[in-house]
Amino acid sequence: MGKREVEVSILMGSKSDLEIVQEAIKILESFEISYEVKVLSAHRTPKDLVNYVEQVVNNGVKVIIAAAGMSAALAGTIAAHTVLPVIGIPIETKNLKGLDSLLSTVQMPKGIPVACMSIGMSGAANAGLFACQILALQKKDLGKKLKKFKEDMAKEIRKIRIG
Amino acid sequence: MGKREVEVSILMGSKSDLEIVQEAIKILESFEISYEVKVLSAHRTPKDLVNYVEQVVNNGVKVIIAAAGMSAALAGTIAAHTVLPVIGIPIETKNLKGLDSLLSTVQMPKGIPVACMSIGMSGAANAGLFACQILALQKKDLGKKLKKFKEDMAKEIRKIRIG
Amino acid sequence: MGKREVEVSILMGSKSDLEIVQEAIKILESFEISYEVKVLSAHRTPKDLVNYVEQVVNNGVKVIIAAAGMSAALAGTIAAHTVLPVIGIPIETKNLKGLDSLLSTVQMPKGIPVACMSIGMSGAANAGLFACQILALQKKDLGKKLKKFKEDMAKEIRKIRIG
Amino acid sequence: MGKREVEVSILMGSKSDLEIVQEAIKILESFEISYEVKVLSAHRTPKDLVNYVEQVVNNGVKVIIAAAGMSAALAGTIAAHTVLPVIGIPIETKNLKGLDSLLSTVQMPKGIPVACMSIGMSGAANAGLFACQILALQKKDLGKKLKKFKEDMAKEIRKIRIG
Amino acid sequence: MGKREVEVSILMGSKSDLEIVQEAIKILESFEISYEVKVLSAHRTPKDLVNYVEQVVNNGVKVIIAAAGMSAALAGTIAAHTVLPVIGIPIETKNLKGLDSLLSTVQMPKGIPVACMSIGMSGAANAGLFACQILALQKKDLGKKLKKFKEDMAKEIRKIRIG
Amino acid sequence: MGKREVEVSILMGSKSDLEIVQEAIKILESFEISYEVKVLSAHRTPKDLVNYVEQVVNNGVKVIIAAAGMSAALAGTIAAHTVLPVIGIPIETKNLKGLDSLLSTVQMPKGIPVACMSIGMSGAANAGLFACQILALQKKDLGKKLKKFKEDMAKEIRKIRIG
Amino acid sequence: MGKREVEVSILMGSKSDLEIVQEAIKILESFEISYEVKVLSAHRTPKDLVNYVEQVVNNGVKVIIAAAGMSAALAGTIAAHTVLPVIGIPIETKNLKGLDSLLSTVQMPKGIPVACMSIGMSGAANAGLFACQILALQKKDLGKKLKKFKEDMAKEIRKIRIG
Amino acid sequence: MGKREVEVSILMGSKSDLEIVQEAIKILESFEISYEVKVLSAHRTPKDLVNYVEQVVNNGVKVIIAAAGMSAALAGTIAAHTVLPVIGIPIETKNLKGLDSLLSTVQMPKGIPVACMSIGMSGAANAGLFACQILALQKKDLGKKLKKFKEDMAKEIRKIRIG
Repeated sequence: MGKREVEVSILMGSKSDLEIVQEAIKILESFEISYEVKVLSAHRTPKDLVNYVEQVVNNGVKVIIAAAGMSAALAGTIAAHTVLPVIGIPIETKNLKGLDSLLSTVQMPKGIPVACMSIGMSGAANAGLFACQILALQKKDLGKKLKKFKEDMAKEIRKIRIG
Repeated sequence: MGKREVEVSILMGSKSDLEIVQEAIKILESFEISYEVKVLSAHRTPKDLVNYVEQVVNNGVKVIIAAAGMSAALAGTIAAHTVLPVIGIPIETKNLKGLDSLLSTVQMPKGIPVACMSIGMSGAANAGLFACQILALQKKDLGKKLKKFKEDMAKEIRKIRIG
Repeated sequence: MGKREVEVSILMGSKSDLEIVQEAIKILESFEISYEVKVLSAHRTPKDLVNYVEQVVNNGVKVIIAAAGMSAALAGTIAAHTVLPVIGIPIETKNLKGLDSLLSTVQMPKGIPVACMSIGMSGAANAGLFACQILALQKKDLGKKLKKFKEDMAKEIRKIRIG
Repeated sequence: MGKREVEVSILMGSKSDLEIVQEAIKILESFEISYEVKVLSAHRTPKDLVNYVEQVVNNGVKVIIAAAGMSAALAGTIAAHTVLPVIGIPIETKNLKGLDSLLSTVQMPKGIPVACMSIGMSGAANAGLFACQILALQKKDLGKKLKKFKEDMAKEIRKIRIG
Repeated sequence: MGKREVEVSILMGSKSDLEIVQEAIKILESFEISYEVKVLSAHRTPKDLVNYVEQVVNNGVKVIIAAAGMSAALAGTIAAHTVLPVIGIPIETKNLKGLDSLLSTVQMPKGIPVACMSIGMSGAANAGLFACQILALQKKDLGKKLKKFKEDMAKEIRKIRIG
Repeated sequence: MGKREVEVSILMGSKSDLEIVQEAIKILESFEISYEVKVLSAHRTPKDLVNYVEQVVNNGVKVIIAAAGMSAALAGTIAAHTVLPVIGIPIETKNLKGLDSLLSTVQMPKGIPVACMSIGMSGAANAGLFACQILALQKKDLGKKLKKFKEDMAKEIRKIRIG
Repeated sequence: MGKREVEVSILMGSKSDLEIVQEAIKILESFEISYEVKVLSAHRTPKDLVNYVEQVVNNGVKVIIAAAGMSAALAGTIAAHTVLPVIGIPIETKNLKGLDSLLSTVQMPKGIPVACMSIGMSGAANAGLFACQILALQKKDLGKKLKKFKEDMAKEIRKIRIG
Repeated sequence: MGKREVEVSILMGSKSDLEIVQEAIKILESFEISYEVKVLSAHRTPKDLVNYVEQVVNNGVKVIIAAAGMSAALAGTIAAHTVLPVIGIPIETKNLKGLDSLLSTVQMPKGIPVACMSIGMSGAANAGLFACQILALQKKDLGKKLKKFKEDMAKEIRKIRIG
């Protein structure tokens, strides 16, 4: 039996990032996108990371999501080893409040793009959605679901009554 | 005669952003990606912007790149009206050195993702490349060209001799 | 029977902003200014927002107050669609402590002004007061009440005895 | 012969701010709003400033615009002595790039609002426009001119052709 | 009976600042410096503040300490009305973590100095000490006490044993 | 023949700081305050610095002004070795625009106060003025000159005519 | 019997820094590196500090680790008095979240290097590791242990299973 | 003939960093330390970088210096692949003035230390000096030269006469 096809790979630099990353997972599950989640660190498991990234395209992976904090080299290192689209989630930090993670993730030099999302949970959810938006270019049904998701958000807001 | 097919739409908030945006254009041209460029402002031509965004999918557009500075609402406003992937380029600013553009572009709330690149020229070039990486999921040749682009960058670096 | 006249419209991007916005409401009520409060998002209900802003002048609205956080496009988007004075309240954020909301709200490009208040609760109260100051140009009594409010603040401070 | 009626008073903390403030003056002149311009400093001429602010309403002034840099106390000090709407322009600074002026102008405590614009020239132009928006609540013609100004901005953008 | 002589005047912009200011009071009491504490606001009681500052020299006051937060105009406004040395304590703030108070207090324009201390409690204690250092230029005994205070601090540290 | 009496000692961490420090010198000269200027570095001549600080009181020095940039330890190190009032001037820096110098100078821990002025030239001038304000507590004439200086600043501003 | 040989000296500016510094101690103990820990302040015990630093090389110390917060002059002052490698740990602070400690520690002027680690606990652990990396140049076994430490970190990550 | 022995390896992410890195080279040359300089990028030549780092110890390299800007992953990536001491130089950047490079270089997670120097030229010179300080633990002569370098710096300062 062959290996399970996976459309989105979600990597995080530390297991403590999982609470944040869960927001991306929830989105992918709600859109029925196949995914796998791994803890791989640009600094602590650099070779495992490169090995993983180089073979991931063979499993069918089309988009990679990477969450990391502090000097957040994860998304950039992945982007250095693949031409798949890489989405970065800057994880919030205790001291500099995620400013370090944000600048490390977003300020990529010319030639190696990373698609940076907002810091923390909203960024994780948006990473999941952005992955879906990319995949939807090839899957008409997914595009429709994304439009419905937008309409449902609007409906939720319309229901609110104040005063 | 039918309208020209366009894969990437590039919008900027002000004509003065063109010098920066040129880096994205150069990349798209070198990869032979069809594109169109428009000046449309979230603040000064909000209706034109929405009209444009709503019909752009009909021209075949698959990715939208948006460059804006200061309170940079352009990419976010576009993302509010489409489920196409939107890539944001924060334009550098005179006073706050692009920190305002960066935070306005990247700190999107949950539900409406924008793929934020680095501030200024490197971000513009990367926006072009990231658009290609998305399109390459459907175009095998483009993927090969992106790999060659990466190899060429490496070769350029390898040629450098110091001392 | 006709629709209730409303002098000030208060919009917020998310229901979670209501705790902050309450400070503006308290001020408007203490000055007996008619108002209405709505949750409308520049990113999640962009069309509802534009429709609301375009017709709001017909209800007699003279000032719009807009509260939003992160990439806070609400006040700027409203200002793009009206020539009524728009007052922005940057909502505090978990990670960047409201710096993102502040820069997104205040750094408006030339041509589309937003009157930005301080971050969070003090800014919300001041948004209510600033709306009153604008309305007082046409309502002599309101001007007197504002002067009395100032005197009362001073009296409160004068009462304090330390040591 | 009586004193000239003045609708908008423009104050700046130092003569060197005039280049920036000129943007506000240009706007007021284009909308035919009467104004006067003075250099008055919260720190170097505090009594002249208070005397001026206390009598300014007698000349018909309805809105005060205040431009200052560094520890920019001008707008806040004016707001402490009047219930007229006060609009603040944070002047750019050499070292901290206007961040000091911005935070000093915008972070007003509860009870004393200042309507803060963006840093520097765009903020000065917007201060002029925001003053017009306030005055337009009493002057129907001014409201029409403001709408035309918006349309003209949009037309300027529509004229731009790229490539 | 004449009014009590007071060497140091301590002002704060809001009663909520008292917890911080207490650190300055403790220092002054331990050095047996006469002082008085008042709540006076540059924004909410501007005239009381000026009246107080103008007469304070008659009570024998030689140094003024001013504590304020956010757009912290208190120390600067006092310095505008006196040639006595003014010491500023930037009060910590919820959102911008005292960066706003610090920049508003320290970035005084040429001509009107404020001696800015560190943010919050350490700054308040240091304001008390700095006042003593100024007074010690005229009081030999106080200079000796300050030296002893320094030696006692060193002794406290020398007592610490780790491991 | 005895050594010249000196009231104010001005130290700077590097000769390149002299252009900025000149503003303090100009002020001291205009008020006829005796001073001396030395280049002494907390990092490069730490022992010379301590030796100098420990004997400086014997020359009659009453106030020490210290200018330094980057990790600006000069003022704090001086304050560690004396109970004379120490005034710090944060020198502007190329990369972080003086934010590093400012935080290093102002954020002194409890027990060792430094009176921090604004960044750069305005701070240097104010350091000179603040030294005069301290000395004026013992020199009545100096107090009068300081008042006249303030009045002259106001007169300069009053002379300005705009438009 | 002679004094115990010590390879690494760990200094901190205040006893409250011990919780953070403990991370460095744990690392040194796990690698069986001899060390001593002292509280010595650049500002409160400047002479003790210099005396200690000047003789420390005689005890065999090869690396000095210094932890301090706010205007963190400790590492820089030590570096001024020795040519031993000095490693700085910026301690997190309540108000500016360690940004002050970081800039004070890292922005050393040309000529006096400090090896700055990240803010807080991760920086403290890394200070211990970096000291080991330096010592390992002379101790082959230590180099092997450091490689094993790296492999163990990787193994820990590899054990993690998600979902 | 065997390969030349090299004590220090200097890497930079882009040839444009050479002007800054030159300061490190000058220092190493003045101390007669053998070195080699290479352009290798964590993002554009990731495999060359890893290959280089893994074999560099065989050439006798004892310290690696890495200079990079923006999302500066170079030093951290090197540190991930070696237990040699890695010194990072954050290169100044056009928009965020090196704050991005600094935070990316210094905020390393627990387990993978990088010794971060100050931004730009002073940091590059200090990287060279810090490498020498490490090497001096094994080379007595080098220690003496470093002490002489310090004395020479002090002498240079002592020669300066002002006024």
